[in-house]
Amino acid sequence: MEIIRSVDQMRRRSAEFRDAGSVVALVPTMGALHEGHLSLVRLAGELADVVVVSVFVNPTQFGPSEDFERYPRDLDEDARLAADAGADVVFAPEAREVYPAGFETVVHVQKLTRKMCGAFRPGHFEGVTTVVAKLLNVVRPNVAVFGQKDGQQAAVIERMAADLDMGVEIVRGPTVREPDGLAMSSRNAYLSPEERKDALVLHEALEYAEQLYRCGESDAALLLDGMRTLIGSVKGAEIQYVAAVDAKTLEDVPELGPGVMFALAVVIGKTRLIDNVVLGERKRGEEAGGSHDDG
Amino acid sequence: MEIIRSVDQMRRRSAEFRDAGSVVALVPTMGALHEGHLSLVRLAGELADVVVVSVFVNPTQFGPSEDFERYPRDLDEDARLAADAGADVVFAPEAREVYPAGFETVVHVQKLTRKMCGAFRPGHFEGVTTVVAKLLNVVRPNVAVFGQKDGQQAAVIERMAADLDMGVEIVRGPTVREPDGLAMSSRNAYLSPEERKDALVLHEALEYAEQLYRCGESDAALLLDGMRTLIGSVKGAEIQYVAAVDAKTLEDVPELGPGVMFALAVVIGKTRLIDNVVLGERKRGEEAGGSHDDG
Repeated sequence: MEIIRSVDQMRRRSAEFRDAGSVVALVPTMGALHEGHLSLVRLAGELADVVVVSVFVNPTQFGPSEDFERYPRDLDEDARLAADAGADVVFAPEAREVYPAGFETVVHVQKLTRKMCGAFRPGHFEGVTTVVAKLLNVVRPNVAVFGQKDGQQAAVIERMAADLDMGVEIVRGPTVREPDGLAMSSRNAYLSPEERKDALVLHEALEYAEQLYRCGESDAALLLDGMRTLIGSVKGAEIQYVAAVDAKTLEDVPELGPGVMFALAVVIGKTRLIDNVVLGERKRGEEAGGSHDDG
Repeated sequence: MEIIRSVDQMRRRSAEFRDAGSVVALVPTMGALHEGHLSLVRLAGELADVVVVSVFVNPTQFGPSEDFERYPRDLDEDARLAADAGADVVFAPEAREVYPAGFETVVHVQKLTRKMCGAFRPGHFEGVTTVVAKLLNVVRPNVAVFGQKDGQQAAVIERMAADLDMGVEIVRGPTVREPDGLAMSSRNAYLSPEERKDALVLHEALEYAEQLYRCGESDAALLLDGMRTLIGSVKGAEIQYVAAVDAKTLEDVPELGPGVMFALAVVIGKTRLIDNVVLGERKRGEEAGGSHDDG
């Protein structure tokens, strides 16, 4: 496996891959790779001949009071893990080459970024879309793989790629969870043992909503209320948002159905965690018309 | 010559050109082609094997009170002129395909766009950079040619292409002028015969500044004052700005030298015209140290 540190070298290498007729996949990451990332790398390997994993802790997507400085970094370990998962290239550019003096261009998806995480992290998605646009322009992959765990991010990237005619297929890989249900995240490393237990409430709230949906409940507001109550019962958990939205357009939906995403952000101690679940088809017999009586 | 109306077809055709090993140049225009555009098409022909001329009157770069509706449109004539100048493809997409329902992404160069034309046309450059990013993503040319006549636009596009790692060379083609000096512009067609005479003051002001620079004058403020006085003497001319800036960074410069751009925007009647000149090297003997005495 190759490790490439320079933008020009990555651009040249990627052109060689294309000239050789290879289908190229990009998996953009901030490193600190865990099983969630690695599942995306393996998925990319099924979709493409060449898998490029970018590792770049992007300063512009962190707010001034956020965890840019302490975000975990270990390129050697990331490269080892990426290689084991089937990566052909780890692209780890230096910040001074990504953002040279005089840099001043942003790519901004205007509406999808206003709500949910965007409302609590001003500038975050602008940082994400700008750096992802750059990575896509350097690597020019046929397909780029993002985690469903960052569900709003996936929707925002899909919108950007379509709006700017980027000619890349955006694929979402499923969320990978710890055995007890906690969604894998590099930020889980910040949790104390007690917080680690409290953090389970994110998954529990999503499971609660998904199960009631499966049992025939269709009223989003009712389930959002229940989720808030459930999370509110955990002393160390502070809700930022709980939402039921269309997984692609992120529009609030009053009525549940396939493609609706329950998404939430909860601060556990000082660690901000997000998670979501996208509802599937109800199995035949699960649908219960008028299951919820307003009266 | 081919005329392509669909984004997907243009993308496929461009991939064929690249696969055949051709160097591709793009000349983005809003149509109403005049000799200025055609000189860019010919320049593109010198730089590339295949020349694509895009013709798209981009609604998002016009302000609500500007001339989008009456902007001249004649695709047949544009195609004929482009073909004569050596274009291989005219790419003329429909607005509904360029901006489908739900479109919401913008590319924004934050600083270079604040001054000069940007200060008088809010949102204009965001419209330009967004549509040019899209055109570049669809055509993926090796080189894209822009007119020096729109000097700030050229600087903004160069910045965007570099910042977003677009991997395209941006080339500026020189301004083409009518025999009496008026810079070619599709908007010259709006001028009445009397306004047409008044409009000469843009070029006269630039000539005045350039000649004094050649004679050894280095004080930008002094020449800007002289230009304002000169333009102010024309009753039908209303100055929006007169500036002396670095042609690449657009930073104001107090002292003149090679690479400094005198740029101006002047409203003649109801027609807004722009023009500029980039200073070259002074010939030996022209330089006059301390030519301007403050005392």
